[in-house]
Amino acid sequence: MINGNTGIIAHIGYPTRTFKSPMIYNPYFESIGVDAVVVPMGCKPEQFPALLKAVFTLTNIRGAIITMPYKIAAMALLDEAGPAASIAGACNAIRLEADGRLRGDLFDGEGFVRAARHKGCRIDGVRALVVGCGGVGSAIAASLAGAGAGSLSLFDQRAGAASELARRIAARYPAVRLSTDSGDPAGHDLVVNATPLGMNPDDPMPMDVSRIPREALVGEVVLEREVTKFLQAARARGCRSFVGTDMLFEQIPAYLEFFGFPPATVETLRGLARF
Amino acid sequence: MINGNTGIIAHIGYPTRTFKSPMIYNPYFESIGVDAVVVPMGCKPEQFPALLKAVFTLTNIRGAIITMPYKIAAMALLDEAGPAASIAGACNAIRLEADGRLRGDLFDGEGFVRAARHKGCRIDGVRALVVGCGGVGSAIAASLAGAGAGSLSLFDQRAGAASELARRIAARYPAVRLSTDSGDPAGHDLVVNATPLGMNPDDPMPMDVSRIPREALVGEVVLEREVTKFLQAARARGCRSFVGTDMLFEQIPAYLEFFGFPPATVETLRGLARF
Repeated sequence: MINGNTGIIAHIGYPTRTFKSPMIYNPYFESIGVDAVVVPMGCKPEQFPALLKAVFTLTNIRGAIITMPYKIAAMALLDEAGPAASIAGACNAIRLEADGRLRGDLFDGEGFVRAARHKGCRIDGVRALVVGCGGVGSAIAASLAGAGAGSLSLFDQRAGAASELARRIAARYPAVRLSTDSGDPAGHDLVVNATPLGMNPDDPMPMDVSRIPREALVGEVVLEREVTKFLQAARARGCRSFVGTDMLFEQIPAYLEFFGFPPATVETLRGLARF
Repeated sequence: MINGNTGIIAHIGYPTRTFKSPMIYNPYFESIGVDAVVVPMGCKPEQFPALLKAVFTLTNIRGAIITMPYKIAAMALLDEAGPAASIAGACNAIRLEADGRLRGDLFDGEGFVRAARHKGCRIDGVRALVVGCGGVGSAIAASLAGAGAGSLSLFDQRAGAASELARRIAARYPAVRLSTDSGDPAGHDLVVNATPLGMNPDDPMPMDVSRIPREALVGEVVLEREVTKFLQAARARGCRSFVGTDMLFEQIPAYLEFFGFPPATVETLRGLARF
């Protein structure tokens, strides 16, 4: 029950209709008696810097969750960034430190790695393809590299996006084999669609599904549709897969820790979520 | 259940611990299936203008409730003010008009008048004493004048506060008899404590209770304590009285209308409120 003492976590993005965080965190907070609430805040691009600054002047702010399209823009507003955020150049969680500095970090990739492990994928030495090198694709690639991936194939339609990401990963993780010249899924153990393709039913496929090895694990970041046309096609080939909401739930414990709330298991969070 | 489509009413003030609005509006919204939520936002004075501007850039903002200490400061940030706000020089509700202008109005006084009527007080021709001519005292005086009060005695410890308010009321309601030289409750039908005195148990009395006529109706604006020492003393004299929360509840239907939500009766709101 929201009252005058309730702490706020501002969930900032645009549009807001696909936001899932309020329906995950709020039932959890209620279940354990934590007086805090995730509040959706829809924000247009030109207003984002002023809004972020303003919410962190609130006396009852507990943190901010940053989603599309502000994960990259938020980086310029931080005083310091955690390792995953620094590599990916994006952040999705911000807190105010005791000394007044804004610290941001990125948990998409951590959630993806945890979800893949949950599906039995061994990350150490894995050969992974990441299609889409925007905020979430960069996060996943950075976390895969940090978790010991053997090779990373990075691909993006936008010229330079994949090579720029590869350069940053190579600087930190020189042992990872990197390539950026192809979105061909052949020869990979782990295949990721990190593009927005799949949000709409008539989107084209993000890659040639007929080239995905049948033994590969296929992951998806789209939250709007639980099973996209792309995942349906991968499953029809016999591939194991996991959906965007798996990645979403797997990252929540990391956020809770970042914001200073009591820890929760993914199973508890799934059981309480209301969507 | 808060979700990505939920509209926000920002309740802005400082400190936030005495906020009651979330526990009144939110159960009501839930009961009628309106997807909106009142969110407490604690704000320090130097941040108020930037915060107010920022919240009205949110794509899901439905309005703002303004409480202490910003009711007067908010006036400078409006594009237009309703009649009660203009007279009192304070506002406690702000909405964004379709053309982008910020419109503010003031409902404290309207709530007070409704609460007094509910207690059987005839406002037309009433002789009223208002002690405390800050935001809420000004609001009550303005609404009493607008509702047909016969005379208004205005008193404030701060030099000039009462006479300044009297000047503004006289300009709009020339028929009301006004005096500003005394806080003596003798000779009044309706007596109001509109000072913060009573929030703390060791506060001095806002007026000489032994001079309140036994047949007078005594009203209080303090929300922190349901029955203040002042009201206890007035009741001990045999006076009828009403408390700050009466005024609070009576004004909610006016707010709901202002923000464009379905109407509610005070009885419904009281039955649903959770505090």
